Amino acid sequence: MAENKRVVMVGIPGVGKTTLLTKIVEILKNHKKNVYMVSYGTLMFEVAKENGLTDRDELRKLSVSEQQKLQKLAAEKIAGHDEEIVIIDTHAFINSPEGYYPGLPEHVLKIIKPTNFVSVSAKPEEIYNRRMKDDTRNRDKITLAVIKKELDVQSGMISACAVITGAPVRLVLNHEGKVEEAADKIIRAIGL
Amino acid sequence: MAENKRVVMVGIPGVGKTTLLTKIVEILKNHKKNVYMVSYGTLMFEVAKENGLTDRDELRKLSVSEQQKLQKLAAEKIAGHDEEIVIIDTHAFINSPEGYYPGLPEHVLKIIKPTNFVSVSAKPEEIYNRRMKDDTRNRDKITLAVIKKELDVQSGMISACAVITGAPVRLVLNHEGKVEEAADKIIRAIGL
Amino acid sequence: MAENKRVVMVGIPGVGKTTLLTKIVEILKNHKKNVYMVSYGTLMFEVAKENGLTDRDELRKLSVSEQQKLQKLAAEKIAGHDEEIVIIDTHAFINSPEGYYPGLPEHVLKIIKPTNFVSVSAKPEEIYNRRMKDDTRNRDKITLAVIKKELDVQSGMISACAVITGAPVRLVLNHEGKVEEAADKIIRAIGL
Repeated sequence: MAENKRVVMVGIPGVGKTTLLTKIVEILKNHKKNVYMVSYGTLMFEVAKENGLTDRDELRKLSVSEQQKLQKLAAEKIAGHDEEIVIIDTHAFINSPEGYYPGLPEHVLKIIKPTNFVSVSAKPEEIYNRRMKDDTRNRDKITLAVIKKELDVQSGMISACAVITGAPVRLVLNHEGKVEEAADKIIRAIGL
Repeated sequence: MAENKRVVMVGIPGVGKTTLLTKIVEILKNHKKNVYMVSYGTLMFEVAKENGLTDRDELRKLSVSEQQKLQKLAAEKIAGHDEEIVIIDTHAFINSPEGYYPGLPEHVLKIIKPTNFVSVSAKPEEIYNRRMKDDTRNRDKITLAVIKKELDVQSGMISACAVITGAPVRLVLNHEGKVEEAADKIIRAIGL
Repeated sequence: MAENKRVVMVGIPGVGKTTLLTKIVEILKNHKKNVYMVSYGTLMFEVAKENGLTDRDELRKLSVSEQQKLQKLAAEKIAGHDEEIVIIDTHAFINSPEGYYPGLPEHVLKIIKPTNFVSVSAKPEEIYNRRMKDDTRNRDKITLAVIKKELDVQSGMISACAVITGAPVRLVLNHEGKVEEAADKIIRAIGL
């Protein structure tokens, strides 16, 4: 019997991850796969609300130990799912005033036990163009140098995640206008 | 109540970390913060002396397990501090004949439980110039290629530290003559 | 008494690791050292055969948990060796359809307890030329961009291994036609 898959998919803003995820879920469902897709960020906020928080900004102001408690609860919810393929839509890190916050710390990885990592990237120039279109308020902060640094950190953090869990990492370059090609690579990596 | 901070600050030789640290401590004290700053290397040697060593060179010749025992004792001393802000001045790695020795191995991280990492870098050319001035004996070994490799390894190791601990990493580029700007970024990252 | 060494040596295909290893073992034996060298991949397959597998391809089709069981058994065999110098010939990652499979996951590192890592690299152009000569079937898939990405991932994963274990990493650039020089650097890193 084939093992269930828990696929963690990361990508910095502007790589086109959302479009790619929609495509992947569509293809998997066409193949009659039992898929559950969850956004880790959304789930974290739901868990936070169940624990008394009322808006997302409060989440960031919690102490590290309180945040870890919520991360743990969210991870346990994911670990409780037993669909054939569980896709976790998340980030290697979240850009915050404190710096790059790891989205997949070890204590979360030990609970989720991913079977596959997918790290989506794109050409820095394409990321730049997408961000300039999407985030009109922060245009002055968007530079190619920052984007290259973020891709580097994503790569370093996901390598650490792979070593900690023993799960493979598929690096996928999402070329503008070639989402089908990228989706296809990811689906083959998951082992459909 | 705000949580106490344990800030681990790393930077390869020549990035200007010492000047930056002095500046940061000065600003924090002006804000009436209760700050304790410690150099991990100095603390390691103090612990070693308490355990019978007489000079720094002996430290390197100890077996891995004996070094780990001393690292553990030094980490426990740091963990025992309860000032509002504890700043640990250290290195992502130490350059030794054996190669790049991790300055923050997992077993040390689990004891110190950092709340923040700060990784200081600088332009390779500025690092090169500072090293050529400071380390006149080893000038022939200083090359831009080596410096770039060291910055890469620092970035990889600190990413692993972040994933293991769940603490955020603030990458700060310390531009020549702009130490106040860099200090300001770090202080905002710590959350003053 | 000097500690026994367990040296983990990694290098992506085409860096010239095999020639380098042969040279190193030759030099160590000339110095009357008690050396045991083992290929982790070969050992994994032997362990798999003892557990009922008949060909290498089946190995890859096992579930993650079954592979981890075999990895654990292979690591325990290595940990059982008490030669003065044990050299483990392996990879930071294995290129598979699932992506980059970590060759040294944390659970294996905790058993082997390496005292030294050696990460062999080479100029991308030299790696490219060696691969074009060796792997005539897959010539169309060999590109400089892929090789650079692989060197990056090797560097990220080995940094994580260093942080997890606390052991140093010696990065060695294996220049074409200068295998003696590279071997010499490695032997000094091991501490002969």
